Amino acid sequence: MKDILQSYQSVRQWTLDICEPLETEDYVVQPAAHVSPPKWHLGHTTWFFETFVLKPHKEGYKEFHSQYNYVFNSYYESVGARVLRTDRGNLSRPSVDDILQYRAYVDEEMESFLPSLEDDNLYSLIILGLNHEQQHQELMITDLKYILGHNPLFPVFSEKGLQKPETCSDEDDFVRKEEGVYEIGFEGTGFCFDNECNKHKVYLNPFEISKHLVTNIDFLHFIESGGYTDFKYWHSDGWAWVLENEIKAPLYWYEVDGEWKFYTLEGLKTLDLSLPVCHVSYYEAAAFAAWKGMRLPTEAEWEVAATDFDWGKRWEWTGSAYLPYPGFEKAPGAVGEYNGKFMVSQKVLRGASEATSPGHSRRTYRNFFQPYYRWQFTGLRLAK
Amino acid sequence: MKDILQSYQSVRQWTLDICEPLETEDYVVQPAAHVSPPKWHLGHTTWFFETFVLKPHKEGYKEFHSQYNYVFNSYYESVGARVLRTDRGNLSRPSVDDILQYRAYVDEEMESFLPSLEDDNLYSLIILGLNHEQQHQELMITDLKYILGHNPLFPVFSEKGLQKPETCSDEDDFVRKEEGVYEIGFEGTGFCFDNECNKHKVYLNPFEISKHLVTNIDFLHFIESGGYTDFKYWHSDGWAWVLENEIKAPLYWYEVDGEWKFYTLEGLKTLDLSLPVCHVSYYEAAAFAAWKGMRLPTEAEWEVAATDFDWGKRWEWTGSAYLPYPGFEKAPGAVGEYNGKFMVSQKVLRGASEATSPGHSRRTYRNFFQPYYRWQFTGLRLAK
Amino acid sequence: MKDILQSYQSVRQWTLDICEPLETEDYVVQPAAHVSPPKWHLGHTTWFFETFVLKPHKEGYKEFHSQYNYVFNSYYESVGARVLRTDRGNLSRPSVDDILQYRAYVDEEMESFLPSLEDDNLYSLIILGLNHEQQHQELMITDLKYILGHNPLFPVFSEKGLQKPETCSDEDDFVRKEEGVYEIGFEGTGFCFDNECNKHKVYLNPFEISKHLVTNIDFLHFIESGGYTDFKYWHSDGWAWVLENEIKAPLYWYEVDGEWKFYTLEGLKTLDLSLPVCHVSYYEAAAFAAWKGMRLPTEAEWEVAATDFDWGKRWEWTGSAYLPYPGFEKAPGAVGEYNGKFMVSQKVLRGASEATSPGHSRRTYRNFFQPYYRWQFTGLRLAK
Amino acid sequence: MKDILQSYQSVRQWTLDICEPLETEDYVVQPAAHVSPPKWHLGHTTWFFETFVLKPHKEGYKEFHSQYNYVFNSYYESVGARVLRTDRGNLSRPSVDDILQYRAYVDEEMESFLPSLEDDNLYSLIILGLNHEQQHQELMITDLKYILGHNPLFPVFSEKGLQKPETCSDEDDFVRKEEGVYEIGFEGTGFCFDNECNKHKVYLNPFEISKHLVTNIDFLHFIESGGYTDFKYWHSDGWAWVLENEIKAPLYWYEVDGEWKFYTLEGLKTLDLSLPVCHVSYYEAAAFAAWKGMRLPTEAEWEVAATDFDWGKRWEWTGSAYLPYPGFEKAPGAVGEYNGKFMVSQKVLRGASEATSPGHSRRTYRNFFQPYYRWQFTGLRLAK
Repeated sequence: MKDILQSYQSVRQWTLDICEPLETEDYVVQPAAHVSPPKWHLGHTTWFFETFVLKPHKEGYKEFHSQYNYVFNSYYESVGARVLRTDRGNLSRPSVDDILQYRAYVDEEMESFLPSLEDDNLYSLIILGLNHEQQHQELMITDLKYILGHNPLFPVFSEKGLQKPETCSDEDDFVRKEEGVYEIGFEGTGFCFDNECNKHKVYLNPFEISKHLVTNIDFLHFIESGGYTDFKYWHSDGWAWVLENEIKAPLYWYEVDGEWKFYTLEGLKTLDLSLPVCHVSYYEAAAFAAWKGMRLPTEAEWEVAATDFDWGKRWEWTGSAYLPYPGFEKAPGAVGEYNGKFMVSQKVLRGASEATSPGHSRRTYRNFFQPYYRWQFTGLRLAK
Repeated sequence: MKDILQSYQSVRQWTLDICEPLETEDYVVQPAAHVSPPKWHLGHTTWFFETFVLKPHKEGYKEFHSQYNYVFNSYYESVGARVLRTDRGNLSRPSVDDILQYRAYVDEEMESFLPSLEDDNLYSLIILGLNHEQQHQELMITDLKYILGHNPLFPVFSEKGLQKPETCSDEDDFVRKEEGVYEIGFEGTGFCFDNECNKHKVYLNPFEISKHLVTNIDFLHFIESGGYTDFKYWHSDGWAWVLENEIKAPLYWYEVDGEWKFYTLEGLKTLDLSLPVCHVSYYEAAAFAAWKGMRLPTEAEWEVAATDFDWGKRWEWTGSAYLPYPGFEKAPGAVGEYNGKFMVSQKVLRGASEATSPGHSRRTYRNFFQPYYRWQFTGLRLAK
Repeated sequence: MKDILQSYQSVRQWTLDICEPLETEDYVVQPAAHVSPPKWHLGHTTWFFETFVLKPHKEGYKEFHSQYNYVFNSYYESVGARVLRTDRGNLSRPSVDDILQYRAYVDEEMESFLPSLEDDNLYSLIILGLNHEQQHQELMITDLKYILGHNPLFPVFSEKGLQKPETCSDEDDFVRKEEGVYEIGFEGTGFCFDNECNKHKVYLNPFEISKHLVTNIDFLHFIESGGYTDFKYWHSDGWAWVLENEIKAPLYWYEVDGEWKFYTLEGLKTLDLSLPVCHVSYYEAAAFAAWKGMRLPTEAEWEVAATDFDWGKRWEWTGSAYLPYPGFEKAPGAVGEYNGKFMVSQKVLRGASEATSPGHSRRTYRNFFQPYYRWQFTGLRLAK
Repeated sequence: MKDILQSYQSVRQWTLDICEPLETEDYVVQPAAHVSPPKWHLGHTTWFFETFVLKPHKEGYKEFHSQYNYVFNSYYESVGARVLRTDRGNLSRPSVDDILQYRAYVDEEMESFLPSLEDDNLYSLIILGLNHEQQHQELMITDLKYILGHNPLFPVFSEKGLQKPETCSDEDDFVRKEEGVYEIGFEGTGFCFDNECNKHKVYLNPFEISKHLVTNIDFLHFIESGGYTDFKYWHSDGWAWVLENEIKAPLYWYEVDGEWKFYTLEGLKTLDLSLPVCHVSYYEAAAFAAWKGMRLPTEAEWEVAATDFDWGKRWEWTGSAYLPYPGFEKAPGAVGEYNGKFMVSQKVLRGASEATSPGHSRRTYRNFFQPYYRWQFTGLRLAK
C-alpha cells in the first residue's frame, strides 16, 4: 500500500490539469441531459472519497458542507436523495471556487489519512475511487467537447489537444481465429471492475476481425452512397432515431459550403480523412457494417483477437449486449450499485480512446452505453 | 404441398374463432401505442397474403382496394408508406364488415390458387404467412385482454376462456446441468423463423434451472416483503420505470378493499395463488430473481434444459439479449425485415403461453420484447 | 310549461337523426384529445338528465348503471371522478347499443315525469339541459367531420349534408356605426346562457364592419401572396403554432396535383371558391385581417351591428377575449361550472353555423374557444 | 435632446449596479425556459443599441462580433435567426468578460455619437432602447431571484436588497367610483409604449376597488381554508395548473417543520405576514378573489381609480385580457414587433414593483404576462 499516496495525488492532479484551459462559465452549463457540468465532475469525484472513505473511516473527520451529499451524489440510491441529472446545469452555486476549496479540503484530509492505511478492503475501495475518478476524467473531456462543440462560436479548448489522435491505415487486413473454446474475463492481481469477472470459457465460431479501425474516408463513402437514407442497413430503433433526430453524419461533422468540417478540441477544422471515425452511435456503427456486408465483432471475439491488433484510439462498439459474466456478483452496499444495475439495454464497447486517462485501459475492460449515444469518442472495427 | 390448403383454411378460421365473442366496438380501439385494434390484425394478416403471394404470383389478380396497402402495412418499410402505429385506433373505416369482406375475397383467391402451387419458395412464403398469422392470433388475444382489462366495466370476453391456464407446483425442484459445449438452434425439416438459425455450439458453465414457474403466491411474497419499494433488486432502468409508472404489482392485479383481484378473459376474479404469475415485465422478473438471490436463465441454458421440464404456460423471460446467432442472414426483400432489424435493446423469451395458437411452439422458438412490456402472457423461471 | 314534453322529444330525436348515417365503428374513435367519440356525446347528454333531473327530483328513480356517472361525466368536478378526456376513445364498452338503451330508459322516465312538472327552477334546468344537448349536437357534427375527414379513405357522411352551406357575396360592403354608448347582452323572457348576462352599456368608437363573410377565394389570395410564410401578419403564439404544426391552409384543405380540394360531409370535393371560408383558427383569422390592413370586430361591435347584416353561416372569431360581463354571477352547484370557469385564454365567437341546431342561435349568444382550434365551423368578418 | 447622454449613462450603469453582487456562475444558468441568464440580458440590451442605432446610423461603425446578432437577438424575427430561448443557458461563451467588453465598446461608440444627435425619430428610438433596458433590468432581478431561489443552498443575493419591500395595511378600505364614461390611455409629451395609445373613452359600471394590496396574512388564510384544494374557486385552466404542478402556495414559500418561510433576495426568511403577497399567478389571484366573493379590477377601473390609492409595490393582476386599444397601430419594421404580437392569451398587469427601475412606471403603463407565470413580483388588489 505504499504507493497509494502518490497514486492518489497523481490522479487527483490530472483532473485539475484537464480543466486548466477552461473559463469559469464552461464549468457550469449542461447542454443535454446526459452531459454533466465540469464543476459537477469536480465535486462528485471528491464526494466519493468524502462519503465512502473519510466519513466512515477517518476518526474525527468533519464534513465540509452538509448539503454537498445531496448536490454531488450521482446515482447512488443508497446514499440519500440526489439532484436530478437534468437539473445539474441549473445550479450556479456552489461556485467553482467553492468546489476547488472542497477538493483541497478533502485532499488534505486524504493525504494525512493514507500513509497510515492498513486495511485491505479500504485500500481496494480507494483504488476503486481513483479508477472512478479516471472514468470521470474521460467523461469530463467528453462533456466539455460537447459543451464547446455545440456553442455557435466553436471555441478552441486547447491548441495542444490532450492526446494527438493518430491516423489509421485503411488496409484490408484481417486477423483470423479458429473455432473452439476460449477464455475471457479478468484474472490477475491488479485492479479490475467487477463486471470483468469472472474469467470464463466461451465457444467461438471461426471469425475474422479487421486489424484497422474504420476511418473518416470509409464513413464518407457510406454517407455518399446514401447510407443514412436507406432503412435496409438499420435496426428498426436505429432508423427511427435517424428520422427523429435528422441524423446525416457523425456528431461534430458539419457540411459548410460543400466541404466537410469537424469540431475538435482545437476548434473547427477541415475533416481529416485518415483519422479513425469518431462520435458514431451503435446504430451508425451497425448500419455501416451492414452496408459493408459485414458485422461488428462480439466482445469475446474482440478480447480473444486483441492481442493481434493495435487498439486504444477509440472506444469500439461491439455487437454484444452488456450482460453479467457467469458468476458475477454485486458487491454489498452502495459500491455494488456501480456496474450491475446497468446490465440491460446497453451495448459493450471495448478499447480506449484519446481521452482515456493514462493507465486506465485493459484488454478485458468493458465500457458500455446505450446504443443511441455518440458523444463519447466511439468508433468501430469490422468483423465477418 | 398437398396439405397447404387445409393448413391455410384452418389457420385463417382460427383467427375468426378468436373474434367470435367480440362486439363491433371492441375491434376498433387502441388504448396504448403498442396495442393494435383487432380489426387491424384481421386486415394486416390478410394484407400479407395479398401483398406477398397474390399480387406478385397470381395471374390476373385484382387488388381488393387500392388504399389497403397503406392502411394495413405494419412495419414493412419496403412496401410503401404506412399508417403510424399510434394512429390505428383513430380509423373507424374500413369497418369490420369491410375487412371481413376483404378476408373472404383474399381467402377465395388463395383457395383457388393453392391447389396448383408448385414453387418451393412460394410454399415457404405461404407457410411463413401462416406462422405470421399465428403470431398475430396471439397478439390479438393479448391486445383484446388489454382493451377489455383497461375498461372500467371489466367486460367478460368469454366465460369459457381460450385455454384453461393450469396451476403450477411450487416445489423447490431444480434440473442440474454440467459445464461443457452444447448445441442450440433449429435444425430439421419443419418450419422455423430465421432467427432460430443456425444451429451452433455454446459453452455453458454448470447451472441449475427450476422445474417450475414462479407462481402468484411467490410474487405476492415479493410484494409483501417490499420488493417494489427497494431499489436494490432492480436494474437502474427498471427502477426508473417503477417510479415513473407507479408500478406496485403485475399488470391486471387490483387491490380492492384489501383483497387481491386480477382481470382474466372471464372477467375480474379473486387472485388465484396457485397459477404461474403472468403479465410481468423483464424488469419485474429480474428484480424477483434478485430478491430470491438467483437469476434468470440464459436462452441457451433454457433450451438445453427444456427437455427436462414442462413448459408452454408462459412466455418466460430469459437473461439473454435478442441478438443474431452465428451465421444469421437476413432474407432479401421485405420478408427479410421480419426479425433481424429488432436485434437491439430487446430480451429473449422462451416457451409459449395459454394464448399461443395450436402447434405454434418449439423448444428453439425465440420470442422477444422490450424489457418494459408486460401485456404479453409473460412469466419467469429461476436459475442459479 | 306545457310544451316542454314536445321540446324534449324533438331535441332528443334530433340527436339520433344526426347519427343516422353512421357506422357503429364511427361512434367509437377519438382521433384527437379535443374530439369526443359520438357515442360519448350520446351518453353524456343523457347523463345530464339522469344526474341533474331524475336522480334528485323523480321519486323512486332507479339509476340505469352505477358506473355511467363515471364514464359520462365531462368536466363537472362537483359530480365525482370522470374519465379523462383523452381516454374516451379507448373505451369499447359501453357499446352503442348499451348507450341507446340508456337513452331509451332515461327518455321514458323523463316523458313520464315532464307532464306533471311544476317547479320553475326545474323547468329552467331542463331547458338548460336541452340547450346543452343542442350544443353537443353541433359538437357531434364537428367531431364526426374530424373523424371522417382525417380518415385516409375520406368517407362520405351523407350525400345530403345537414344544411346546405350557402355561397356568399364578396362585395366590399361595410356597415358604419357612430361612436357612443350602446347596450349589449341578453334581456328578455326566453332562454339564454348565464354568460350573456347582464345587459350593460359599452362605449364604442366609430367603426365599420363588413356585411359579408370572408370567402374561400379571399383566403386563397392570402395563401398565394405568402400569408402563411410571413411572420409579420401573425401573433407571436400564432406564428409558433404555424411553424410547429406546419400549417399551410385551413383545416380540410388538401392540395392534390396542384388543385385545391376540401373535405366536406359529402366527401372530398373541389374547393368551392364562393363559400365563406371555414375551419380557420383565431390565429389565421387575425393574420388574414392584418394582411388586409383591417382587424376583427370586437364582440360588442358585432352585436351592435348584427341587425344590419346576415349572419348564421359561420361561427365568427371576434377580437374579444372571453370575459365575464359586468355583474356576471355563477349559478350555485354543478351547473354553475358551465361557463364561468372557462373565462381565461379563450376568444369569443359570434353567429352560428351550418351545424348549429334549429333554433339554437341568438344575436347575444357567446361561443368561445381557444385561439388554436379550428375543427369548429369557424370563419371571419372584417372590421376597421 | 441635451440630456440624452446623461440618461443613457445612468440607465446603462444601473444594469451593472444590479449585477454587482453576482458570482460569475450566476450569470450563466437558465433553470427554466422563461428565465434568461443574466449575461444574456447584458448582451441583449447592448445588441439593441448596436443593431438599431449604431449599425444603421453611425457612419463607419464596425460591428463588435459577427455572431452576436445571432446570440443576442430575442424575438425580433425581422432581424435574422436567433438562439432558441430554451438554449440560452447552454452557452458558456461568450463569457461574462467578453460581454462586458461588448458593453464597453458599444457604450463608447454611443457616447461619442449622442452629443451630435439631431434626428427626432432616432432620439425616440434611443429613448425606447433605454426603456427596453429598464424592462430588462427588472427581468434580470426577477430571473436571478429565480436562479438563486431554486438553488438548494438558497444563496443570499444581497444583504441590502434592492429596494425595501414595504408592509401594507390590511384595512378594509375601498374607493368607490360612479358609472359613466371615462378616459384611459396615455396622452402627453413624455415617453410611453405603443400599447398605451390611444387615449380613448370607456363606459364603466359603478365599482369599488380596495385601497390596499392583498397581504401574506390574507393569502395564508386562503391556504388554510383549503383554497388550493377546492376547484370551485378556480378557472378550469387554473385548476389543471394547480394539479399538474402540485401548487400549494405562492412561489418561494416553503413550509419547513410547520413554519412558513419565504425566499427573498436576502436569503430564506420567516414569512413576513404584513407584506403584500408576491409571486402569485393570475390563476391564484383570481381564485383568491373568488374565495373572497369579489373579483379583480379591470385595467380601466384600475387606471381610473389609481389616483385615489397608493401603488407601485407589486405588479397587480387585472381581470383584463391584453388587447389593443382602439386605433392601436404597430410601428413599421422590427421595432413594431415590440408589443402588438403578444396581444393574445395574456393578462394585463398594472402598477410597478420593488424591482422596477427608478422612473420606469406610469399610471397608464400596461404590463402583460401569461396567466400561469409567477416569477415576476406580482400581487393583487380586490374589486367588487
